[in-house]
Order: sequence, then C-alpha cells, then structure tokens
Amino acid sequence: MTVTYTSRVANARLCGFSKLLLQWKGSIYKLLYKEFLIFMLLYLTLSSIYRFMLEESQKRFFEKMAINCNNYADLIPMSFVLGFYVSLVVSRWWNQYQSMPWLDRLMCTVSCHVQGTDEYGRILRRTLMRYANLASILTFRSVSTAVYKRFPTMRHMMEAGFMTPDEHKKFESLNSPHNKFWVPCVWFVNLAVKARQEDRISDYVSLAHIFREVNNLRSQCEKLYSYDWISVPLVYTQVVTIAVYSFFLACLIGRQFLDPSQGYAGHELDLYIPVFTLLQFFFYAGWLKVAEQLINPFGEDDDDFEANWLIDRNFQVSLLAVDEMHQNLPALEKDKYWN
Amino acid sequence: MTVTYTSRVANARLCGFSKLLLQWKGSIYKLLYKEFLIFMLLYLTLSSIYRFMLEESQKRFFEKMAINCNNYADLIPMSFVLGFYVSLVVSRWWNQYQSMPWLDRLMCTVSCHVQGTDEYGRILRRTLMRYANLASILTFRSVSTAVYKRFPTMRHMMEAGFMTPDEHKKFESLNSPHNKFWVPCVWFVNLAVKARQEDRISDYVSLAHIFREVNNLRSQCEKLYSYDWISVPLVYTQVVTIAVYSFFLACLIGRQFLDPSQGYAGHELDLYIPVFTLLQFFFYAGWLKVAEQLINPFGEDDDDFEANWLIDRNFQVSLLAVDEMHQNLPALEKDKYWN
Amino acid sequence: MTVTYTSRVANARLCGFSKLLLQWKGSIYKLLYKEFLIFMLLYLTLSSIYRFMLEESQKRFFEKMAINCNNYADLIPMSFVLGFYVSLVVSRWWNQYQSMPWLDRLMCTVSCHVQGTDEYGRILRRTLMRYANLASILTFRSVSTAVYKRFPTMRHMMEAGFMTPDEHKKFESLNSPHNKFWVPCVWFVNLAVKARQEDRISDYVSLAHIFREVNNLRSQCEKLYSYDWISVPLVYTQVVTIAVYSFFLACLIGRQFLDPSQGYAGHELDLYIPVFTLLQFFFYAGWLKVAEQLINPFGEDDDDFEANWLIDRNFQVSLLAVDEMHQNLPALEKDKYWN
Amino acid sequence: MTVTYTSRVANARLCGFSKLLLQWKGSIYKLLYKEFLIFMLLYLTLSSIYRFMLEESQKRFFEKMAINCNNYADLIPMSFVLGFYVSLVVSRWWNQYQSMPWLDRLMCTVSCHVQGTDEYGRILRRTLMRYANLASILTFRSVSTAVYKRFPTMRHMMEAGFMTPDEHKKFESLNSPHNKFWVPCVWFVNLAVKARQEDRISDYVSLAHIFREVNNLRSQCEKLYSYDWISVPLVYTQVVTIAVYSFFLACLIGRQFLDPSQGYAGHELDLYIPVFTLLQFFFYAGWLKVAEQLINPFGEDDDDFEANWLIDRNFQVSLLAVDEMHQNLPALEKDKYWN
Amino acid sequence: MTVTYTSRVANARLCGFSKLLLQWKGSIYKLLYKEFLIFMLLYLTLSSIYRFMLEESQKRFFEKMAINCNNYADLIPMSFVLGFYVSLVVSRWWNQYQSMPWLDRLMCTVSCHVQGTDEYGRILRRTLMRYANLASILTFRSVSTAVYKRFPTMRHMMEAGFMTPDEHKKFESLNSPHNKFWVPCVWFVNLAVKARQEDRISDYVSLAHIFREVNNLRSQCEKLYSYDWISVPLVYTQVVTIAVYSFFLACLIGRQFLDPSQGYAGHELDLYIPVFTLLQFFFYAGWLKVAEQLINPFGEDDDDFEANWLIDRNFQVSLLAVDEMHQNLPALEKDKYWN
Repeated sequence: MTVTYTSRVANARLCGFSKLLLQWKGSIYKLLYKEFLIFMLLYLTLSSIYRFMLEESQKRFFEKMAINCNNYADLIPMSFVLGFYVSLVVSRWWNQYQSMPWLDRLMCTVSCHVQGTDEYGRILRRTLMRYANLASILTFRSVSTAVYKRFPTMRHMMEAGFMTPDEHKKFESLNSPHNKFWVPCVWFVNLAVKARQEDRISDYVSLAHIFREVNNLRSQCEKLYSYDWISVPLVYTQVVTIAVYSFFLACLIGRQFLDPSQGYAGHELDLYIPVFTLLQFFFYAGWLKVAEQLINPFGEDDDDFEANWLIDRNFQVSLLAVDEMHQNLPALEKDKYWN
Repeated sequence: MTVTYTSRVANARLCGFSKLLLQWKGSIYKLLYKEFLIFMLLYLTLSSIYRFMLEESQKRFFEKMAINCNNYADLIPMSFVLGFYVSLVVSRWWNQYQSMPWLDRLMCTVSCHVQGTDEYGRILRRTLMRYANLASILTFRSVSTAVYKRFPTMRHMMEAGFMTPDEHKKFESLNSPHNKFWVPCVWFVNLAVKARQEDRISDYVSLAHIFREVNNLRSQCEKLYSYDWISVPLVYTQVVTIAVYSFFLACLIGRQFLDPSQGYAGHELDLYIPVFTLLQFFFYAGWLKVAEQLINPFGEDDDDFEANWLIDRNFQVSLLAVDEMHQNLPALEKDKYWN
Repeated sequence: MTVTYTSRVANARLCGFSKLLLQWKGSIYKLLYKEFLIFMLLYLTLSSIYRFMLEESQKRFFEKMAINCNNYADLIPMSFVLGFYVSLVVSRWWNQYQSMPWLDRLMCTVSCHVQGTDEYGRILRRTLMRYANLASILTFRSVSTAVYKRFPTMRHMMEAGFMTPDEHKKFESLNSPHNKFWVPCVWFVNLAVKARQEDRISDYVSLAHIFREVNNLRSQCEKLYSYDWISVPLVYTQVVTIAVYSFFLACLIGRQFLDPSQGYAGHELDLYIPVFTLLQFFFYAGWLKVAEQLINPFGEDDDDFEANWLIDRNFQVSLLAVDEMHQNLPALEKDKYWN
Repeated sequence: MTVTYTSRVANARLCGFSKLLLQWKGSIYKLLYKEFLIFMLLYLTLSSIYRFMLEESQKRFFEKMAINCNNYADLIPMSFVLGFYVSLVVSRWWNQYQSMPWLDRLMCTVSCHVQGTDEYGRILRRTLMRYANLASILTFRSVSTAVYKRFPTMRHMMEAGFMTPDEHKKFESLNSPHNKFWVPCVWFVNLAVKARQEDRISDYVSLAHIFREVNNLRSQCEKLYSYDWISVPLVYTQVVTIAVYSFFLACLIGRQFLDPSQGYAGHELDLYIPVFTLLQFFFYAGWLKVAEQLINPFGEDDDDFEANWLIDRNFQVSLLAVDEMHQNLPALEKDKYWN
Repeated sequence: MTVTYTSRVANARLCGFSKLLLQWKGSIYKLLYKEFLIFMLLYLTLSSIYRFMLEESQKRFFEKMAINCNNYADLIPMSFVLGFYVSLVVSRWWNQYQSMPWLDRLMCTVSCHVQGTDEYGRILRRTLMRYANLASILTFRSVSTAVYKRFPTMRHMMEAGFMTPDEHKKFESLNSPHNKFWVPCVWFVNLAVKARQEDRISDYVSLAHIFREVNNLRSQCEKLYSYDWISVPLVYTQVVTIAVYSFFLACLIGRQFLDPSQGYAGHELDLYIPVFTLLQFFFYAGWLKVAEQLINPFGEDDDDFEANWLIDRNFQVSLLAVDEMHQNLPALEKDKYWN
C-alpha cells in the first residue's frame, strides 16, 4: 500500500518534516532495522575482540589496520554514486507509475461513441471495456507479484469474471510463445469494427477516435512490460552495492574506538557506542534502501503501487460509466448565475 | 498566495538578488526563524553549561567530544543529498503546476462547436462548462487543503452554484467507493453526444475535437490526483531529514568555542556567537525548507499555488466565453495596414 | 538584444573560447564590474586598517579571526548549490524561450483553409491573424517590461494598429478582473465559426485543424504567463544568495594577507593584491549572475529575449502570408532533375 | 540476452541487493575479471621489484615517487566525470530502447481498417505488415551486429521469408547510395492507397489513421539509426577513458605498501594485498564498464537488447493479428456482473 | 564528418574503450595538441627561469608563490562547473540533432495523397517536395557555415536546381527584413490547396494530414534557427572559460618542481616533466573542448553534423519516393508463411 503523507506536510511549519520521523509504516526504520542490528552486532563483536582478546602487539596491528580502513572509507565517493543511481531509479519509478493504465479516457470515449441503450448495445460497451480491462490486467500480471498471486492462472481470471469461458478458450488456443497481453487489444479493435459495420458506431471519425485511445492504452501496457523486462543494468546495481557494502566493511574496522592512550590523532575519546557512525549507516544504507524499494514498485513493499486496487477501481468504474451512466443525465436547468 | 518577484529582478543590475533578501512575505526568514531561535537557544545553553557549570575534567571531556562531533559534521555530504532531493521535489512541484487545469482550450472549443444562441443552446454550453469546472474542483478538493476547507461537503459545492440540486442527488446516489472526480467528465461526454444527436453539434469531427479537449482535462485531473496520492517515497524524505537533523545535532556540540588556552587547533578564538555556524544553519536548513514548502504546493504556505483563485477564474471566464461572448464579435473592418 | 556568438566558435580551434573573453557586450565584465570594484574596495580598506591602524594585540586578534573566516569559507559548498540552482534556472529559461509564440504554423493553416481572394476573404484572414497577434502581444505585455513600456495601455495597442477602435471598446467593456489575453482567442474561434457558416472554410475538418493550431498558441501564451506568475520559489533564491554573499563576506576577512613574520601556515607571502581571491570572486559571483540574468529573460539585459522584435516579425510575416502571398504561387514547371 | 532481475528484488528485504552480488551472467565480475587480473599482476610485479630488486637509494626514490602518485590519484575527480558521463550514456541507452519498434499499434490499425476476409484481403493485410516488419528489420540490420550476422545480405532476408523475390529485385534495382530502410515504408503507403482506391479501406479518415501509425514506425526507425550514426562525441569518451586509466596508472605506483620502517605517514602497515585499492578498482572500472556496455546496446553483451527476438516476435504476432485473428471474435455474452 | 565509433565498442570486451584511444580523427589529441604544446612550453620556460636565472632570494619568493598558487588551484571546483556546463551543452547538441529535418514522413504523405501519374501529377509532387527541401536548406544555410559556403547566395541554390528561376524571382521580390525560411512553407500549403481544388488531393482529411506533416517540418526548422539564434548565455560560457584558464595559469606556477633540498612538503622529488599535471591538463582542457566542439555542431569540426550530406540525401530520396516509386509496387503474392 502506498504511504501518502503529503497532506501532513501541506504547510511548511516549525520542523516540518520532523513529524514524519515518527512514522513506522513505510519508514526507513522498518526497512533497515535488521541490517542495523547486524551492523551493530558485528561492530560490538569486533570491539570486544579488540578490547579483551587481543594481545598488545595484536592491538597495535589492529590499530594501524583501523586507521588504514578509515582512510579508505573516506575515499569512496558514496554520495556521488548514490546520488546519480537513485536519481535514475526514481525517474524510472515515476515513469512506471505514469504507465499504469487508467481507463477513464477510454471509457468516456466508448460510452459516447457506441450507441444503443438496448441489451445488445450494453453488451457491446461492457465487452469492449472488459477487453480493455483484460489487457491491463494481463500486463499487471506479468509485472506485479501481488497481481500474479491473485491470478496465478488464466482460469482464475475467468472465475473472477474478467473473461468469459469462451474467451478463455480462444485465448488459450492461440499458439504463441510470447506474452499475450496484446490479444484483448486485437479483440477490442475487431469488435469495434464490427460495431461500426452494424452502425452502432456512427462513422469512421468516431472509430478512429476510439482506436487512438485504445492504442494509447496498449502503449502504456507495453511500457510497463518494458520497464519490467529491461531492468537498470545489473552491472550498475552491482557497482553501487559493492561500493556501499565495502564502505561499511571498512567502517566496521576503521571506526572502532582505539585506545586513547596510544595518542592516535582523532582517537582521544572512547565512547563505546559509535553514535555518528551509526547515523552515517542510517544515512547511506537508507539511501540505498530508497533504490531497493523503488527499483521494482510492483512488489509488496509498504510503498509499492497498489496494482490490485487499480484493477478493481478500473473495472468497477468503467462498467459503471459505460452502462449505468450511459445517457443517464441530470436534468438540464439554468444555473445559479444565469444572467 | 504565490510570491511573484521576477519583475523586480528583470534586469541584472548591481547586486541583483540582494534586494530580494529584504522581503519578509514568503521569505526564508519567515519560514525559518522559529527553528533558528530554537537552535540558538540550545547552542547558548550548551555553551553556558560548558563555560560555567562543568568542572575541569568534564570540560576536557566535553572538548574532546566537541572535536569528535565537528569531524563528523564535516563528513556528512549534506550538499549532495540536498541537491539531488531538492531537484526531485522541484521537478515534481513544477509538474504539478502544469497539471493544474485551465479551461481556456475547452471553452473555446465548446463555444464554437456547440451552436445556437437560443436559451437551450445557452443552457447546453453553460452546463458543459459547469461540468468541466466541477471535474477540476472535485480534483482540487481532494488535493488542496484550502479548497477542501472551502467546500467541506458536496452540499457546499451545490450552494456555491457549481452543481444543481438534481446533479447533487445523482452524484450522491452513485455507489462507488472511489474518488468520483471522473463523474462530471462522463456527464460531459454524454451531454455532448446528446447535443450531437439534436444537431447542436454539427458533425462527428467537431464532437471528436471536443472529446479530445475534455480527455486532456481529465488527464490533468488524474495527474494532480496522482501527485497527491503517490508522494516522494517516505524513505527518501526520512533519509534526508535524518541527515540534516543529525548534522545540526553534531554542530550544536562540535561548533562550540572551546577554551583557547587549551590550544586545540582551530580554536584560538572565542567569539561567543558562532556567526558562521548560524549562517550555515540558515543555508542548509533553508535548503531543506525549500523542499518542505514545495513537497505539497497545495497547502496554505505563502508560496503555494492559489487553487481557489484558479477555480474562480476558470468558472467566471469559461461562462463568459461560452455565453456572453458567443458569436458576439467586434465589427469586421480593414486594419490600419491594409495595402 | 540577444548576444549570438555560436558562429564565432563554429569550429573548435586553438583556444576556441578564449576569443569570447574579449567581448564586452553581454559579458560577465559588464555585468559584474561594479560588484567587483565594491568587493575590491572593501578588501583594500580592511587591508589598510589591518596594516596601518590596528595595534599589535588587535592585529593578533584580527589574524585569528581571518583564519577562522577562511576555514568557514572553505566549508560552504558553493559550487554545488550554484550548480543545481543554475541548472534549474537555465532549464526554465529555455522553456520560456520555447513558449514564445511564432505564428508561422497558424498563418499557413489560415492561409490555406480560409478561402476567397475578394476583399471580404482578405479581411477575414487578416483579422484572424490580427487576433492571434493580439493574444501573443497581450501575453508579452504582462511578462516583458520592454513590451509593457511600448504599450503601457490598450490605447497604445489600438494606435499601433493591432486593434481597431471597435475591438478596443469591446475589449474594455468586458468585465473581468483577470488577465484578458484569452479574449482574442475567443474572438478568433468565433470568427472562424462564422467563416465556416459562410462557407469560407469548406468543412469541419479544416475548422478543427485551425482550432488545433490556435489552441497551441493559447497554450504557449498560458505557459509564458505561468513562468512569469510562478517564479522559482523565493526561498530557494534567497538561500543561494545568502550562501554566495556570506561566502564573500568570509573571504573579505579570511583572505587577507597576514603578517608573514607571524608564521601562520599558508601565510608565508604578502602579495597585497589577492589575485586568486579576485578570480574566485569572478567565478562564483559570475555564476550567480548567470542566474540573475536568466531568471527573467524578458527584461532589458543584453542577453534577454527580444520580444518586441518577435512581435513585429510575427505581425509583418503573418499578414504577408495570409494576404499578399495567398494563392500567389510561382509558375509550376519541371525541375532541373526531371527524368 | 537481457538480464532481468527486478522480480528478484521486488520487495525490499534484508540486504535486498546483496543477493544480486552472486550472479555471474551479466555481472560486473564477468565483465571485469580480465582487467582485474591484469591490474593485480602489474601491481604485484611492481611490488616485487620494489621489495626485492631495488637498491636502497632506488627504494627511496620509488617511495617518493609513490607518495607523489598517490597525491595525484586523489586529485582526479573520477566520481564526477563518471557520474555525468554515465548519466548521459544511460539516458541514451533508454531512449534507444524506446525507439525499438513494436508493431502492435500498427497491426491493430491495419487489422481493422483493411477489410475483406477473402484471399486478396488477407494478402493485402499480410503484405502491409510484412513491409512494416521489413522496415524495422532493415533498421536493426544497420545498427545491430547480431541482426547483421543473421542477415548478412538482402538475399538472406528473402530466404527467411521477409521479402518475396519480386520485392527483392525491386529493392536491389533502386539506385540510391543511402541506407534504404525507408523503401518499405513507401511501399506500405502506396499499397495502402491502392487498397483505398479498391475500397478495401473504407474512407480517408481510416487511411490517415494508418498513415499516422506507419509514420510513427518510420520515426522510430530513424531514431534508432540516428543513435547509431551520431555516437556520444568521441572526445568525451576519450576524456573519460584517459581520466580512468591515468587514475589507475597512478594507483599502481601510488598505492604500493612502502617500507613501514621509513615512517611515511599512512604507511605504517604492510598488508601485501591492497584490498581497498582493489575494491576501488572494482568500483571505478565497474562504473566505466557500465558505460562500455550501454554505449552500444545492440551488440552481443549479456545485457544488450535482443533485437532478433523482437524481430521474430513482431513478425509472428503481427501476421497472427491481421490474418488468423481478423474478425475472429469470441462470442458476445453477458458478463458475470450483468446488473 | 561525424565520427561513428559505436560499432567498434558494440561488445564490452577487455579494455573496451582503450582501442578508441588510438584514433586520430575527431580525437582529443587532434583538438588539443596545440594547446598542449603551448602549455608545456610555458611550463618549461618558467621552470628554466626558476632553475637557472633566479638568484637565491628570488627562488625563495618563487617557491612561496608556487605553493600559494597550488593551494588556489585545488580550490577551484573545476569538475563541478564543467560537469554542469557540459551537461547543458550536450543536451542542446542532441536536441539540435533531433531538429534536423528528415523529409521521409512528408514524402510518404505527399506520395500517397497527391494523385495522378500523368505529367501534371508528377510536377505537383516534385514541386511540393522541392519546396519542403528548400525550406530545410534555407534553414541550414542560416545555421551551418558549411552549407553557407556551398550556397553563398540564392542564385547558387537556383543553379543547383533547388529553385526555378521564377521561384527565385518571387522569393527575392518578397520585401521582408526577416529570415525567409518560412516562404517555401507558405508556397507548399498554397500549392497543396490548389491541388485540393483541382481534386488531385481527394478530400480535406488528406489535406489536413499533409499540413500536419509540413507544420512539423516548419517547427523543426524554427527550432534549428532558435538554437542558433539563442546561444548558451555568453556569461555562462565566459565563467567556465575563466575558471579553466585561471586554473591552468595557477598550475603553471603552482605545479613547478621546487628544489627538494628546501624541504617543502610534497616537493621531495624533482621529475622535470610534470606527467600528472599534463594528464590533468588533458583531462580538464579536454572536457572544455567537448563543450567547444558541441556548442555549434554545424561547423566543420570532425564531429559536426553533416548538413550537406543530409540535404543531398533528402533531395534525392524525396524525389525518388514521390516520382519514380509512386504507385510502383512489387507484385502482390502470398508470403512464405501463408497458412
């Protein structure tokens, strides 16, 4: 479920974003606390070994090692590589959102161009919209794990009422090794042409208008499918992950509090708990988590897109618009500001 | 209310932007002075404790602590993370502005394609534009706190003249759990089809033209709704906020003036008021405030979009254009440069 | 007037950009020399005070102060914040350019769809184009100071021949508190519909085609208006300005040449004129000037868009195209490569 | 073959990206292990020479040299130049993906506008789609090495059934020195006009609709061709490569472990294997590899686009849609939610 | 001539980009070797003066000066300002490429909508395409130095066959101070209207379709013209150039090898040839060269767009398509996969 919080920060008030820090659902704490505990455990283990188990000469070696690691940790341009990478992931994430099909444009077009309030007209409009819904669901099914779980087979879609048994048979009988989300689109246009031939659609301008909308729907489906098929190049993701992980590896040793009595620069104080290193962990690992969460927004994270909600909304609203509301208008009357 | 200032910096003159620094409304001072006072108070409290209440050994500990904190503060790549985050928020902010519906295109289209200067023709055109206005107001109502305050219920919209009682009844009777901003659009297209059937719209090309414009309106509404529904991922906002806040926490201790007589490097001078740290506070906290202000541009900040103004403007202008100005043309005559 | 220089750097030659450094008009020197002199004066004043007026103990204090300031100056991430801010301003600047209406598309469309070489046909086409010009001028008038100076009132526009007296009267009589740049567009479409009804435009496809172009014009006008209305958020501009100004304030003290005999690190040399600090001033203040110049490209800077030129060009060319050149074709003949 | 992995990181779980680190296919390890071995070999050779073959005075010289090199290595802003360069390459890479033609929109349009279930109608539709496929394959052939290998000559395309012998003859007889991917598009429109004249396409609105789609296809082909023709400017690529290579050259010497007994700062420890330098190599060289892999996504890397797959998919699906599925609809019936 | 190299790096292989380093044409070496020699000469001159001509006290002064300069050189954020500036220039460069008109869409549209295989029909189509070519050449002439050299006057265009003498006369007689690239577009639409009136174009839908394509052509021409007219603001270019040049000025002194016997930190070694400074010169100056080369891609650099090639290609291909290939179709026959 998407976490919507902008209404809570509508006005820039005293410490505006601070109130967001206390939210658990969809928060960085929820995503990160396990890694945080692991990191802390490792740090404390290393710290204990250094303090209690090493001999003097080993301690000296460890201290030099720590300083060495710390220098390295400062060399990695974490913020840069994360900045560019997260920018890329965020822009893909938003493009994916924008590719999610809303059927409102299509349903308005169908509702007004396909005429007839008799049963056949109603079936026509409902079937057209069902095909459009079908195309979008087939796409969602191949990109979203949540939708796939809901409809593991075509049979489930039939049982949920998105397909009739006859359609199901025709669909299955089509012999193609490729993803078949385009099939309902072809049905849609064929049915529209039939409606034109039967004069349910009054002329070719209206037909072309309907086709334009259904083509837009198809392009959106294809885009969704593409974003799923062509991931951010694996190499890029690996490079970023290696950078972040090796940074924290270096921190584990390099940020240990060394014996102040040895007089190493910057090691005058022994605080046991490395507050600032932990904050830095939150910060950098959190930035990477942003990428992890957004790279596939069709999973089941707290902040992922609710594809199932959209499927239900589209289906309900589009049938409502082309059937119940078709030519069902409020009475025309003069408005309040008439003259 | 939006703060428009570009006309004051139209020409790049001596110290161009400096005159903007003295503005209060919508300024960084107005947004930030409370946080500033809190920060200063905390700083001075800590400073007093260090100077007057700590014993010598505690002072030594505090000094080491301060140096430690200062080192950490330098490690956080504030400018980077803020740069990328604010870039994202600014681009969303502008996209939201561009999604705000202006009805000018639609009103021109309706005005010329829906014919008839008799009463029925006028009602038709006014009703069509009222539906378009209704769709945009319903969207604004769900994204803008200011508009929501103005129209807390549908009844308020009816009383303000945007709906007739009959429309209100029909609207309420529609049984759908989802946001109903699409309903007036469906009414619009149904009414347009009716007008076509009654030959008020002369052919299907004109009808398709009207539909294209109303579909664009609908897409804009959907976009506004989407930007409200899908916020910048909470995790990203939290990561940035944590970075900024922990930076200032580290500054509170780390930027204290330490006893110069102890001879710490960079602490030769005791100025009591940390001018530059305060400037840095203004700078970084101000950058974050930019994000806080823009993340929801439909609040009631000084610089937020004036949705209520746009609603009134759209309603007034669109009724004017389709009714009073319909086929009310200036006399055609030869212009000044004729031959 | 726009400064066009790309033809002078068409080829990447020896020290390509260096020849641009000697240009005065529209140059950084012209924009910045006043600030530069002020900065230098302040620097030298401070320098003189330090050298000649302070006592020894005050000098020691000043030296510590200077080192303190210098450290701070190095802390501000000027290049970052300027980089992101100028990127934003530059992209808005170019978008504004692209929103400036060229009427060529519209004039071609009007010229071929509105038929008749008789006087009435000519008046029709000329009037349509005059309305289009009017809409663009009204928009320019509200965004550009130069155009506003040229047409301080509607009467001036009438006198310049862009409006007839009757249009002026109708325009003024329209009772609306809002900017009225949309009025000529409504006139345009009404006149076009009239022309259709009188069969000057042969069918509804052509009419729809004309409307599409005029709607694009209107969208461009609205965009121009929007960029003027919704500035870059004031807070962002203030944050950047504060950062730059406080940086130079810190430099004024921090970059003073200290007495070499005191042995401060990095202060072994006394050059009197801080060449590199001045270069840095040029660099950072110049970067900010880029933003100052581009944030409102409709002012009267050397590099601002020439709205008045475009108005004249559009008016002259569009009347030429729809009147003198209408159906005035070169003789058709076989070209040189026939067979 | 594209490496699709987003489904494996659908949910942000404990150490989300870490599981991607173990993949071999398309991984950074596979791309980089040779360079890594070379780098390591060179490093160890230099290390051995320093340790075992140099005399004392030569060692001192080498040590100074190493420190000098190390300072330089820190000066190169690798992360910056790589960040900007990779951003550019990634955005071109994605634009190229989006230019790959999917024929679904066109096939729907052809299927419904070109009528007739008799043999001639079927030939018409199949031939139209074959021409569209031909145009896309000719483009792929000139940009993709894999497709070029599959169809080294036009004859191979004829043999694969994408061309008939007569078409092949006509195509070869066309006398033009330029790439001829536009030829099948011209055939397509000519054939469509012929179909219109024979009333297989019922009116000009439908014809215009088909043309719009085929023009979009042509624009995509041209874009693909352009991205191949106009590479990222060679100078930019060379600058980045020189930066990365000179960085690693400097590292080879500068990151050698120097004799701790000489007391150089930062050289207190001799670890023999420079773990962190190797990690840095992985990181920076990997970042460059991202660019190398994406700069031409039509090669035969693990992560390159599968043009041959798309060709087969397009051909199979488009013939299916316009022939077998043409007017072959499931029975219309009431859906499950009727009333 | 464009330097196309992506096919040589189609696969990411061992040291993928390294093979590009040895190319001369269009390379960084070719662009930069003169500046490089100048820089080196200046460096060596300064070095000689320091070593052989200065007295001891002058040497001490020079050394302090050098250290001072070196510190400054490190302060300039070269990579940042270059990164943002080059990003801007690259995006403008690519947009300019995309604005270069290819006439394929238009020629397909003309070929199929303008009927008649008789001589008059052929003249019509050829003339229409000639006008379109003319518009694009007029635009190229005003932006590209290479095209301007080819056609210094209108007479040359007439002689090359792009204009007939009658057209030339009409064109010259048009009295307008502004660039006249729009004139052939007006001719085009007028001729198209004439063809419609003579029923060579069968209806207004086809006419509107042609107009849309020619309007797109005109928009592209206007864009090309705009990119030439409105350069990257001069101030920005100057700021970047000053930054780069002052950096190298500071390097000339600051990177001199100082007498090791004086014991300055970081000056333990005297290598005579400053290898790394020269590499840095290559790197930063090369980055600036990228901008110099791309800021006007219509010059005669190795990597500039080949406008003359495109003009010839467009002319040849478009005449071929509308004349020789018009209604000249391969025989229709069943394809290989029939049933």
